[in-house]
Amino acid sequence: MSKVINGINIPNIPWEEAPEGYELPLWRYSKNPITKRNPIKNVERVFNSALVPFNGEFIGVFRCDGVDQVPHLRVGHSKDGYSIQLEEDVVHFLTLDGKKIPDAHWGYDPRVIKIEDEYYVVWCDDIADSPTLGIAKTKDFKTFYKYDAPFIPNNRNGVLFPRKINGKYYMLSRPSDTDHTPFGDIYLSESKDMEYWGKHRCIQKSHFSTWNNLKLGGGPAPIEIEEGWLVLIHGVNQTCSGYIYSAGAMILDRDDPSKILYRCQNVILGPSELYETTGFVPNVVFPTSVLVDQASGKMAIYYGCADTCTSIAFTTVDRLVNYIKENDSINK
Amino acid sequence: MSKVINGINIPNIPWEEAPEGYELPLWRYSKNPITKRNPIKNVERVFNSALVPFNGEFIGVFRCDGVDQVPHLRVGHSKDGYSIQLEEDVVHFLTLDGKKIPDAHWGYDPRVIKIEDEYYVVWCDDIADSPTLGIAKTKDFKTFYKYDAPFIPNNRNGVLFPRKINGKYYMLSRPSDTDHTPFGDIYLSESKDMEYWGKHRCIQKSHFSTWNNLKLGGGPAPIEIEEGWLVLIHGVNQTCSGYIYSAGAMILDRDDPSKILYRCQNVILGPSELYETTGFVPNVVFPTSVLVDQASGKMAIYYGCADTCTSIAFTTVDRLVNYIKENDSINK
Amino acid sequence: MSKVINGINIPNIPWEEAPEGYELPLWRYSKNPITKRNPIKNVERVFNSALVPFNGEFIGVFRCDGVDQVPHLRVGHSKDGYSIQLEEDVVHFLTLDGKKIPDAHWGYDPRVIKIEDEYYVVWCDDIADSPTLGIAKTKDFKTFYKYDAPFIPNNRNGVLFPRKINGKYYMLSRPSDTDHTPFGDIYLSESKDMEYWGKHRCIQKSHFSTWNNLKLGGGPAPIEIEEGWLVLIHGVNQTCSGYIYSAGAMILDRDDPSKILYRCQNVILGPSELYETTGFVPNVVFPTSVLVDQASGKMAIYYGCADTCTSIAFTTVDRLVNYIKENDSINK
Amino acid sequence: MSKVINGINIPNIPWEEAPEGYELPLWRYSKNPITKRNPIKNVERVFNSALVPFNGEFIGVFRCDGVDQVPHLRVGHSKDGYSIQLEEDVVHFLTLDGKKIPDAHWGYDPRVIKIEDEYYVVWCDDIADSPTLGIAKTKDFKTFYKYDAPFIPNNRNGVLFPRKINGKYYMLSRPSDTDHTPFGDIYLSESKDMEYWGKHRCIQKSHFSTWNNLKLGGGPAPIEIEEGWLVLIHGVNQTCSGYIYSAGAMILDRDDPSKILYRCQNVILGPSELYETTGFVPNVVFPTSVLVDQASGKMAIYYGCADTCTSIAFTTVDRLVNYIKENDSINK
Amino acid sequence: MSKVINGINIPNIPWEEAPEGYELPLWRYSKNPITKRNPIKNVERVFNSALVPFNGEFIGVFRCDGVDQVPHLRVGHSKDGYSIQLEEDVVHFLTLDGKKIPDAHWGYDPRVIKIEDEYYVVWCDDIADSPTLGIAKTKDFKTFYKYDAPFIPNNRNGVLFPRKINGKYYMLSRPSDTDHTPFGDIYLSESKDMEYWGKHRCIQKSHFSTWNNLKLGGGPAPIEIEEGWLVLIHGVNQTCSGYIYSAGAMILDRDDPSKILYRCQNVILGPSELYETTGFVPNVVFPTSVLVDQASGKMAIYYGCADTCTSIAFTTVDRLVNYIKENDSINK
Amino acid sequence: MSKVINGINIPNIPWEEAPEGYELPLWRYSKNPITKRNPIKNVERVFNSALVPFNGEFIGVFRCDGVDQVPHLRVGHSKDGYSIQLEEDVVHFLTLDGKKIPDAHWGYDPRVIKIEDEYYVVWCDDIADSPTLGIAKTKDFKTFYKYDAPFIPNNRNGVLFPRKINGKYYMLSRPSDTDHTPFGDIYLSESKDMEYWGKHRCIQKSHFSTWNNLKLGGGPAPIEIEEGWLVLIHGVNQTCSGYIYSAGAMILDRDDPSKILYRCQNVILGPSELYETTGFVPNVVFPTSVLVDQASGKMAIYYGCADTCTSIAFTTVDRLVNYIKENDSINK
Repeated sequence: MSKVINGINIPNIPWEEAPEGYELPLWRYSKNPITKRNPIKNVERVFNSALVPFNGEFIGVFRCDGVDQVPHLRVGHSKDGYSIQLEEDVVHFLTLDGKKIPDAHWGYDPRVIKIEDEYYVVWCDDIADSPTLGIAKTKDFKTFYKYDAPFIPNNRNGVLFPRKINGKYYMLSRPSDTDHTPFGDIYLSESKDMEYWGKHRCIQKSHFSTWNNLKLGGGPAPIEIEEGWLVLIHGVNQTCSGYIYSAGAMILDRDDPSKILYRCQNVILGPSELYETTGFVPNVVFPTSVLVDQASGKMAIYYGCADTCTSIAFTTVDRLVNYIKENDSINK
Repeated sequence: MSKVINGINIPNIPWEEAPEGYELPLWRYSKNPITKRNPIKNVERVFNSALVPFNGEFIGVFRCDGVDQVPHLRVGHSKDGYSIQLEEDVVHFLTLDGKKIPDAHWGYDPRVIKIEDEYYVVWCDDIADSPTLGIAKTKDFKTFYKYDAPFIPNNRNGVLFPRKINGKYYMLSRPSDTDHTPFGDIYLSESKDMEYWGKHRCIQKSHFSTWNNLKLGGGPAPIEIEEGWLVLIHGVNQTCSGYIYSAGAMILDRDDPSKILYRCQNVILGPSELYETTGFVPNVVFPTSVLVDQASGKMAIYYGCADTCTSIAFTTVDRLVNYIKENDSINK
Repeated sequence: MSKVINGINIPNIPWEEAPEGYELPLWRYSKNPITKRNPIKNVERVFNSALVPFNGEFIGVFRCDGVDQVPHLRVGHSKDGYSIQLEEDVVHFLTLDGKKIPDAHWGYDPRVIKIEDEYYVVWCDDIADSPTLGIAKTKDFKTFYKYDAPFIPNNRNGVLFPRKINGKYYMLSRPSDTDHTPFGDIYLSESKDMEYWGKHRCIQKSHFSTWNNLKLGGGPAPIEIEEGWLVLIHGVNQTCSGYIYSAGAMILDRDDPSKILYRCQNVILGPSELYETTGFVPNVVFPTSVLVDQASGKMAIYYGCADTCTSIAFTTVDRLVNYIKENDSINK
Repeated sequence: MSKVINGINIPNIPWEEAPEGYELPLWRYSKNPITKRNPIKNVERVFNSALVPFNGEFIGVFRCDGVDQVPHLRVGHSKDGYSIQLEEDVVHFLTLDGKKIPDAHWGYDPRVIKIEDEYYVVWCDDIADSPTLGIAKTKDFKTFYKYDAPFIPNNRNGVLFPRKINGKYYMLSRPSDTDHTPFGDIYLSESKDMEYWGKHRCIQKSHFSTWNNLKLGGGPAPIEIEEGWLVLIHGVNQTCSGYIYSAGAMILDRDDPSKILYRCQNVILGPSELYETTGFVPNVVFPTSVLVDQASGKMAIYYGCADTCTSIAFTTVDRLVNYIKENDSINK
Repeated sequence: MSKVINGINIPNIPWEEAPEGYELPLWRYSKNPITKRNPIKNVERVFNSALVPFNGEFIGVFRCDGVDQVPHLRVGHSKDGYSIQLEEDVVHFLTLDGKKIPDAHWGYDPRVIKIEDEYYVVWCDDIADSPTLGIAKTKDFKTFYKYDAPFIPNNRNGVLFPRKINGKYYMLSRPSDTDHTPFGDIYLSESKDMEYWGKHRCIQKSHFSTWNNLKLGGGPAPIEIEEGWLVLIHGVNQTCSGYIYSAGAMILDRDDPSKILYRCQNVILGPSELYETTGFVPNVVFPTSVLVDQASGKMAIYYGCADTCTSIAFTTVDRLVNYIKENDSINK
Repeated sequence: MSKVINGINIPNIPWEEAPEGYELPLWRYSKNPITKRNPIKNVERVFNSALVPFNGEFIGVFRCDGVDQVPHLRVGHSKDGYSIQLEEDVVHFLTLDGKKIPDAHWGYDPRVIKIEDEYYVVWCDDIADSPTLGIAKTKDFKTFYKYDAPFIPNNRNGVLFPRKINGKYYMLSRPSDTDHTPFGDIYLSESKDMEYWGKHRCIQKSHFSTWNNLKLGGGPAPIEIEEGWLVLIHGVNQTCSGYIYSAGAMILDRDDPSKILYRCQNVILGPSELYETTGFVPNVVFPTSVLVDQASGKMAIYYGCADTCTSIAFTTVDRLVNYIKENDSINK
């Protein structure tokens, strides 16, 4: 049985058992989606969440597309992991030494990763009207200190590892172009200080004639298990009428995360429910955060649906790791 | 309170009050959509309507996409503003001096504007297999006299002002290319006689990184209010999987309609209901006509949904104008 | 009344009468769709079927898109023509002289056509990662013998005629490019032996500003009737937000199938139900097989919906032929 | 013999006889090109000229691409029709009532047409960063009065007829998109006053698989001859590595210039000399003005070469008209 | 030393020795190009020739782009292999049983291959305005009998092998799309009778990041040598400003020409002379025929330059084969 | 007079005086180009050089496109700055700690910058078949130590500043996509150790409707002068038939190089000579290195021509700085 390492116990993790006879690796929460359109004033859609346990409850940073259809970040609170209360104001950032920074034109697809006693937010930031990774840290989700442009455009989908490895921070990202990029591979970068990054390498390219034939990129923060780093990803399949975003998974080496040990050749969750197949961007399942209860191995995976709302899927570390190994395309 | 000028009273205007606690500027008719697929023989979809009060009831010109999926214009009648009875035959046109004109290959997205005692129809006409504005007039919706090619291709979304200003007719339009145009700004043109047009100027360009980042254009006929011309528009947001058409609004100077006094930075209605997010062209809210009751300020806005059906949204002039001013991006 | 020739009686053909007052040429099965997502292990979606009567029941070859979202072929069985039992294994092929062939990277959109005592499967095969027509034959749907690359890439939507004409086999196909091809016309090819093909000619091009303005191609196997070959086709209409696949029909000369006698200018079935307008590829109605009961003229048309599931539409030969003739665009 | 009508005598017209045995309709000036790179300060290239006889010498408005590579208009003088002296300053414009207008961002491809006692300049002007036709008039080439936006974007290659026809001004133009437009047909528009235009019609579309398969448009001002209006045009052939601009010709009806009487199916001059095949835009021959000596029928055609320099080609009205008729594609 | 097999002696083969110290595998004729623009009436450019020995002199079929810039085929004669006399009329075709066929819209890039006592012409023919291979045969270059559409569109660059192999005819071709195709691999097809073709296979795909990164295709007829079939090819490198066409070479197995024994990783001739780098399509070296003197191994390679003229390059079989082997990328 | 700072004296700098009456800021060497096609075995073209003074002579790293048309780096030697002797072998790299690294698939557009006692090479390297900046250092041009992937793809045109500023290394670069990128702005990045980079900012974006409307990027290493950092750049103008690469210039603040003090609105050298307008990529002037003699201010600018050969242009620091200031677009 796959064992979580360096995790925490989340006894109040959202949870439902799998439906009778259900065979797929993930199952949906029966009351999906957990967010609705126009949940609060000035917000049209909320999705691609980044939820973490916090003081016995849950907190997170959310992509909120405004009634002007421009995405910004907001903090959201949840007592139970299902119901989200968004804050009235958007997230503002200070420099590392505490000076105010003007709000960016946009901010989207945040991830929140706890490293030691800080919560790091990684999101798609705006430099000179080009997309790239922003990194900020907070202890209280009230004051956010932002690093000064640590990644050069054009880049998206940055995901930090939840601890240093061999004394370095590690980041997954998906270099892009300035627009709705028709390519995307997963890169791994390292840093001594979060400010300067280097030793970039491509760890996984998209594959011709697969569910990720156009692009693929990181999802939630990697989960440390005995076998390695359990990494959920998204991949994009280009059809004649648009993109299909699905969720996949792989397991990286714990000491050298540039090394893929297992890669699941199947999607672990693809768009099929109406709230996933219709909406602002049809056919999107986009996992961005996951709660893992170390004791039980239960996983509650938060994923964006159709760039319109947020949903939860459940599984256990054991069930997912078994599925990855059974459908592994690395060691066959 | 915003006051309508040069309007009429429409005591039988379709109307529902806003839902309890509803905060957005427009609300939908509870029985939307008001048209269904295949409403009469040879018509597959009817949308982008142009309804006006007529003899105590309502009449209009409708975009009807045939069972051959080619759009043509038909007259439709409505006693109550909800239920539409389309005529069996498509609209045919005569020259100004009454000679028959062969039917065009296509005709779509009509607007009907009453100026003095004539009803003017403006639509996307076909010149040599290129799209451009057609203009015709009728008094009875039985005989339509067509002007001889007043606008050069390529152009779409022509909207006449409901009265002469400084002795001239004014038209909004959105110059395009020959196909599914990836650009679009709003132009204003003037004419002494409807036949020859000039003094064209761009009054509003689409904006990078907004809900109209790809294009924007006129909607229903402008409504004259004390503050100026209340103009509903459509704007297009390009996602990675298609276009999002939403409705917006602005207010133009009454004497110089090339001057924008207020421009709402938010959408006033975006696609979110299933009949708006799915259909022939997903995610389309496209307002093309509006009934305004001068006495009460009630507005019944007809809009096309997903190029598939027709719906109504309600608001009042006052509520809408307040929303525009509160979210104005011109004077901030 | 149109009479089927060289057909068979299928007393147990799936059948429902047309709804009261229904005027369109085809009507949908009331319990559509007949397949669901994830019907068996490793299959995500099943559509674009190829069903034929077999031993008093039904059998067919189906396009199954795996949980890796890559399409392959599987045999499916049906007692009643509604419920499909897919086989656990994908279809494997032998050479004509019985040697094993490695499985191809993909296989999709099969048609099954009975000619004399063999069932021929024609599908989109993979040659060197390019799409083209594969042809195989089977007597028992257990052993499939594959012809050696009879068509050069790039090609799709091959459809064999159900008997030799003037001593030759005939095939409809739609030459393409290597990707989501933005063009497509119907070609007719002939062969003496299924192995070598020639005398290719274009019999129908796509039309500007019609429901098939982008491309059109063959559907199920042609049905021989007194008037000629009744051929169901698909056509593609390019909107600003994707492709619309609809079904159409035409009638070819029995002795010279390169000659079109009637061509219906309208779609006979277009995407309008939610299972047709949403899914993996929105707005797809794609007919690929049809059961015809010679005695009654009843037709049960199987069509793929949104690249996601399979549905049935009904009509009779008589009703369809009348509709084609009434809306004929050849002889007007 | 073809006779020029309403022309003038230009005894000092630039002229060389055709080379011995030369069979093509036009021949090049032996000292082409007549302009060089960087002819004066701040001008990098001068081409697409608009030369007219003036006070016994010649004068014109020239497209000058600056050392910033942005095109603007300058007046140029020539005593002999070969050597051009550009003015130091760019052309500035006044409103019709004499007020200063700020310089536009760009101006290019001017034509100069004398109508009665005014010289009209038509060029590609800038409205809101979109291209369209500008019209100005001058008597002395010192003061230019500009009409207020007579044509809506997007349009290029406007060419006025040198006299009113049936009391109306006529303009040829080539509607475009906002960029390097991949389409282009010739339209004819009419006006009573140069300010308002209407009755637009397409008189010639580009042809698939010909030397103008991508687009075609007007060239110099039409020349009135007994047979009709002799119109030189440009057409564009799209190769796999860029556009080929060549010159062609047609003859329009004198009383109804929307009617083409003869259209030469061959190019009359295509890029072949090194100064035409190489340069800023390789392979461009682009005729924009022509001097015609009524007495002799001699023609000196000025054309832009590779968007880099200006050249002259010679012919006679008679020789050219004969060639057009011999290679006519209208009446065959 | 490499020995030609089944060849002929051509004592009057065009020939020049390599320049002193010259190290590249091919060298150019010192008086290139051998054709000029506008060589005869109605022909603008002649290139991509197909020359063969004939009655002690030379004859061929040439791509002639007309003064209308549309390509057609003409017979050309040459006493010495350098100077070409084109016939006044274009090539017309009869059916195999001698009936007249209307001239096609276009015809280009012919190859002529002698098999037994017939000369076969293979070219890019027009079927329903789509490009594909035409095949015709002649004994006298006066009467050409054309096969009835042996290859389905879209295809180009067909090259026949000069003898049957294992009783079958073999053809190389490069399947394409309908336009300036952005892909291209070499396929091999076989036929028993030239009329019906099958058993198609891809023998060589284009390579990422090489001189043929976009496409590659066959050149002149294969030359039989002891080592196998010596095949000259063209490949296309896509730069930011257009395509580069260069010549390459490979050697196929004599008994199984789908098997590549050697493939030269370098170009053997690339565009560098002004007549190759400038013209109608800049940077094109396109070999289409070769004369080989069996006795001496001398090769005179005819190649099209910039889609504008024809040139010759020389080498010997021995020198070329050595170069291929030294730079082979198959066996390393 | 502008004074060079931290420069060196190069008494043997290549030099020619400006032609009589010449007014443009740069003038060409009278014997351009200085490299020819196929200069040594296996090299087809050499351009985009990086020359520096070395031991009283000159040495550099050159982009050499092989006879396989794939670019690699080679060291070249020059006694006089005009004649280049390329080494037989390509450049190989060691890790910083001296281990061999396999040769990359490609390497191009090198710059060489001396910082203290090391020569740094920055070029477009290959990571996982994507382009990005490589950095290596050498003292002797024999052994090159390469940093481990300091920049994430996709990036090109990296240029180091020749000394640390405020204790940090600075790099200009032009983030790109994976192909012939249709966008490009200049970014500035900083590093403490050459291995990890951060604090990226955009210092100059390309401008609509200018000579750099598509993209712009760095050229040779910045030159320190009293006014600031004199930076030569390249910019790209997109025409309808390809890209125009020209040279420009700007002056950055010495202490804060993200601040532009002057930016020349004109090109300082554009493609006009035949060796610049024709070749592998027509119309390219691409400056990549410059020799500056501190004593005299003489500048010898090496630039690539048409991706085909290398040329030199001359000016003085004073003349160039004056030109920049006279045509400055920052302070006007």
